[in-house]
Amino acid sequence: MTIAPEEDRRLNAQIAFAVEIDKLKRIIRRNHLIDGSRRENTAEHSWYVGTLAMVLGEHAPPGTDLQRVVAMLLVHDLVEIDAGDTFIYDPVEVAAQVDAERAAAERIFGLLPAEQGAELRALWDEFEERETPEARFAKALDRFAPILANHHTEGGTWPLFKVRASQVREKVRIIEEGSPTLGRYALELVALSVARGHLAE
Amino acid sequence: MTIAPEEDRRLNAQIAFAVEIDKLKRIIRRNHLIDGSRRENTAEHSWYVGTLAMVLGEHAPPGTDLQRVVAMLLVHDLVEIDAGDTFIYDPVEVAAQVDAERAAAERIFGLLPAEQGAELRALWDEFEERETPEARFAKALDRFAPILANHHTEGGTWPLFKVRASQVREKVRIIEEGSPTLGRYALELVALSVARGHLAE
Repeated sequence: MTIAPEEDRRLNAQIAFAVEIDKLKRIIRRNHLIDGSRRENTAEHSWYVGTLAMVLGEHAPPGTDLQRVVAMLLVHDLVEIDAGDTFIYDPVEVAAQVDAERAAAERIFGLLPAEQGAELRALWDEFEERETPEARFAKALDRFAPILANHHTEGGTWPLFKVRASQVREKVRIIEEGSPTLGRYALELVALSVARGHLAE
Repeated sequence: MTIAPEEDRRLNAQIAFAVEIDKLKRIIRRNHLIDGSRRENTAEHSWYVGTLAMVLGEHAPPGTDLQRVVAMLLVHDLVEIDAGDTFIYDPVEVAAQVDAERAAAERIFGLLPAEQGAELRALWDEFEERETPEARFAKALDRFAPILANHHTEGGTWPLFKVRASQVREKVRIIEEGSPTLGRYALELVALSVARGHLAE
């Protein structure tokens, strides 16, 4: 089989991207697995929230394009290959991250053929801007997953980083905006964790 | 906000499933990450191939439903939570695995509300049967990823488990059936690995 040089160039760019994004498996997040055994990496986190979008999709507003949500979640953290993971309860860290993540997006999506890179980059922008129902639901799942993990690991990162219930409840607003049902459920988990002494009021 | 008991029962079942599938992050595969630093787990592998489906989708036959391919790849290895990973070059292991994986599918997808569990189970069955273009392309990516990783890690699992080039070429047929272009590319990687002495002819 012979293929045209242009097609070859495209495939080579896509393979370079594939080799590059393997590095996401080496980016370590703050939170632990649900069994508490170790900290989570960003690649497995991305799988987890993408799969949750399929499983919990009925709790998104009617008409939400769930396949777009899945696609968004698969690429939403690729920028961490360059910029690292950000701990959402550290405002200094969050602010410093914006420029680093933008530069990372330029470089990483820039490895792909131009129009394809622009398409995936647009998914990332959409996620960050949180202005569509798809992005709001994707971000809700991204916030929901660590609450579920912390709840199952005696508070996990909460006591470790001295996070208080009021701070968690503030983050739950992001969940409520993407999915009222999951927001309500997250508040129940927070209340339970407080009752068990795993989260300080 | 009050929700109906039936809706609550559905959500509780979905959350139980979410808690269960977190275990996929603890299932360790034979192959290594592309940087050679450690063996890969099945959750991050699932993210990787799901994302590859988006990136390499144009190399599937025209008309392939790529969103279905992504969905299939996100759930294709959930059965490994109970049945463990299978090394594809060990025929005894492969044969013993069939019943174990079927029982795992019953249990794990059975955690979900019935019709939702049946839907995800159907995706898994479709992947295993490899009779649709979607399943053939999904399986092609599942076979392509470890070849890419082995090629980048001086042969990786090939020398480690005394796998020969003829055996790898036989597996490449599965890739060719899902995507002639990726099949051709995989054969080039095999030839290069042989030339470099990382794969025995």
